[in-house]
Amino acid sequence: MQKIYIKDLGQYVDQTITLKGWLYNKRSSGKVRFIILRDGSGLLQCVVFKGNVTPEVFELSDKLGQESSIEVTGKVKVEPRAPGGFELDAVDVKLISESKDYPITPKEHGVEFLMDKRHLWLRSNRQAAILKIRHRIVKAIRDFFDDRGFTLMDAPILTPAACEGTSTLFETDYFELGKAYLTQSGQLYAEAGAMALGKVYSFGPTFRAEKSKTRRHLTEFWMVEPEVAFNDLNDDMDLAEEFLEYIVQSVLKDRAEELKVLERDTTKLEAVKRPFPRISYDEAVQILAKNNIPFDYGNDLGATDETVISSQFDRPVMVHRYPSEVKAFYMKRDPENPKLALAVDVLAPEGYGEIIGGSQREDDLDLLLERIHEHKLPQEAFEWYLDLRRFGSVPHSGFGLGIERTVAWICGLEHVRETIPFARMIYRNTP
Amino acid sequence: MQKIYIKDLGQYVDQTITLKGWLYNKRSSGKVRFIILRDGSGLLQCVVFKGNVTPEVFELSDKLGQESSIEVTGKVKVEPRAPGGFELDAVDVKLISESKDYPITPKEHGVEFLMDKRHLWLRSNRQAAILKIRHRIVKAIRDFFDDRGFTLMDAPILTPAACEGTSTLFETDYFELGKAYLTQSGQLYAEAGAMALGKVYSFGPTFRAEKSKTRRHLTEFWMVEPEVAFNDLNDDMDLAEEFLEYIVQSVLKDRAEELKVLERDTTKLEAVKRPFPRISYDEAVQILAKNNIPFDYGNDLGATDETVISSQFDRPVMVHRYPSEVKAFYMKRDPENPKLALAVDVLAPEGYGEIIGGSQREDDLDLLLERIHEHKLPQEAFEWYLDLRRFGSVPHSGFGLGIERTVAWICGLEHVRETIPFARMIYRNTP
Repeated sequence: MQKIYIKDLGQYVDQTITLKGWLYNKRSSGKVRFIILRDGSGLLQCVVFKGNVTPEVFELSDKLGQESSIEVTGKVKVEPRAPGGFELDAVDVKLISESKDYPITPKEHGVEFLMDKRHLWLRSNRQAAILKIRHRIVKAIRDFFDDRGFTLMDAPILTPAACEGTSTLFETDYFELGKAYLTQSGQLYAEAGAMALGKVYSFGPTFRAEKSKTRRHLTEFWMVEPEVAFNDLNDDMDLAEEFLEYIVQSVLKDRAEELKVLERDTTKLEAVKRPFPRISYDEAVQILAKNNIPFDYGNDLGATDETVISSQFDRPVMVHRYPSEVKAFYMKRDPENPKLALAVDVLAPEGYGEIIGGSQREDDLDLLLERIHEHKLPQEAFEWYLDLRRFGSVPHSGFGLGIERTVAWICGLEHVRETIPFARMIYRNTP
Repeated sequence: MQKIYIKDLGQYVDQTITLKGWLYNKRSSGKVRFIILRDGSGLLQCVVFKGNVTPEVFELSDKLGQESSIEVTGKVKVEPRAPGGFELDAVDVKLISESKDYPITPKEHGVEFLMDKRHLWLRSNRQAAILKIRHRIVKAIRDFFDDRGFTLMDAPILTPAACEGTSTLFETDYFELGKAYLTQSGQLYAEAGAMALGKVYSFGPTFRAEKSKTRRHLTEFWMVEPEVAFNDLNDDMDLAEEFLEYIVQSVLKDRAEELKVLERDTTKLEAVKRPFPRISYDEAVQILAKNNIPFDYGNDLGATDETVISSQFDRPVMVHRYPSEVKAFYMKRDPENPKLALAVDVLAPEGYGEIIGGSQREDDLDLLLERIHEHKLPQEAFEWYLDLRRFGSVPHSGFGLGIERTVAWICGLEHVRETIPFARMIYRNTP
């Protein structure tokens, strides 16, 4: 027998059907009990009239605790005032399993309490909406690259060396081979992939053992990293803006209901259309000066700086050509000014900060070796990476998009902890 | 300017175009040089007639080393005998970057050498074909669940406790919170997700610090784990067979060319159609007896046992209802025989062994507590998991599919090390 889900009720109007799920909420009014049923696909009001059910069922409807699992049988009615447009006229309610003293009640709870109960908190309509939007974002990301001839290149999680220093790495024993480190980025591997398959993307969890306790930091977060052979910095920016527009417009189209649950101002998202403004680091610094923000030329942009800069625009802004000294060793220098790196950061609007960091990569063997020595990185660990410049090197570019910051921005959330099913932060690795 | 890729040449017949890529191979014949160009999307024979190019270009064509990056301009010709159906009549060849003494030549190399050069080995036509099939499998998996109303539920990688004992876990320091362990399975988290969203799947890397040196074992491998509220064991088997059929038929449809590169016998894959045979553990043991395989009733099936059993069938076989003693604590007992677990393993044909392990989960709080104590697991670490049985418990089922074993089977590979871009084994965590 095919299971019936709330989201498909339109196919069953005026039919008597049975639904299984959990009691999300309830209220009484004289001879009627209203049960809000949730089944993971949606919420549905089930109307239990005293005259339509046995006395036992009516009593049960009174006693059911929040999150009890139940089976409700009744007739599907069109009800334009109801959230999904339907209502169930119940003729029977069966208890599957009780739920007494469910810890998350409709009253306010502290965030730490809710994070402790994250396995239950996920059942709330708001958290479910966030996860459904997260899912749609992940799908949009994959569809975007799959439709454009990219090949998926899963990068390894256990890596022998650090991409950018070892101080913020999780480390583990690796049999007789000494230590292994949890990856901070799949980029170097994606570069090998781009030389093999032209256009690739890696997409997986990445890790930073940073002691950052901000609302933008997780120790474990997902990142997608496209890498394209023969792309220069301009191509990279073209790709980034087409990509972000596609993600945001996909969510707007397919997750309107969930955005409504989150009370998201969707006009801000509707503005996310190409072309995005492209400003140089120098122009960004001028914006800071105009806004009387103290800033030392040559530094990287901080969170506050990013907020000030991005607030000048109604869509993501791309800041390119940073001082090479504050950027990673693998970024190519600007041939027109070797003090600048051919880097780009994309800052989300509404103060959500950097969501994309990318660059054209150094493709000259000697210059790359120089950088590795300047950054005091162990050359031996990078020999395989240097091989990519020894054997048919080509210009190439890529970027990384952090999933959780993107979800936070699109959903309009205060903190990234709600953007992933089970967030990991420096003070939390449970449940 | 739009880049042109080899796979799209059909749109440019009789036009003069420029392609960028790498020299895959070459040969000479009198006044002609044949350059096989690869660009990640395919291979193309470029024909350099002495009379069509400058003397410098003709000489360059002679000297180019394997994997040099080049730009070739010429006219696209239909050539039915060529692999992609086209050929390029070259009028110009430009060197982008040299490649001298490329270490992987057309001669035979040892596997360890090739694994050391994995970042370059990926450029071979065979390895590229495997990765493209891997990608198609991953896409089929996600499409399958996305099209059926499942929500993606990324499970955490850093976990506070072990799912099944701690001896095979990678461990890392986690700030002030002590140790964290790399996940072996997202299942318990997916169960929380199923109670929230009805139908979910987790899909990510999982880890086993097992000292297994077999051709089926990696220390880091990807796993997809669907979990469905209100599914029993039969529903679980229905889902597993529909799922596997979908994956295999998707690859057959869209990756015929890559399967040909691998010389895969596709008739074996065409047979992967529902319904799959379903046999009980007891019936599986009878098959072993009939084939004179010594086996102690009550044990789990070993690799050889699986090969013998699966060789009786032309498609995957589902073995269900194992002795509960050899199965995990969270599996529900068969109400008709409590010595059996409502478990199912799906064995791939052609000796590829178990690719799916699944079960109906224990949904009774008291029985689950009993199992946790029997298995000497720390109850406190599982309190959140027990909550799923305290607050509206429902019957539910799920399974896990190992990606690398599935890729090995579909591609017909001897060893899982070629199924993932950068394999991790007990004796290898580089490059």
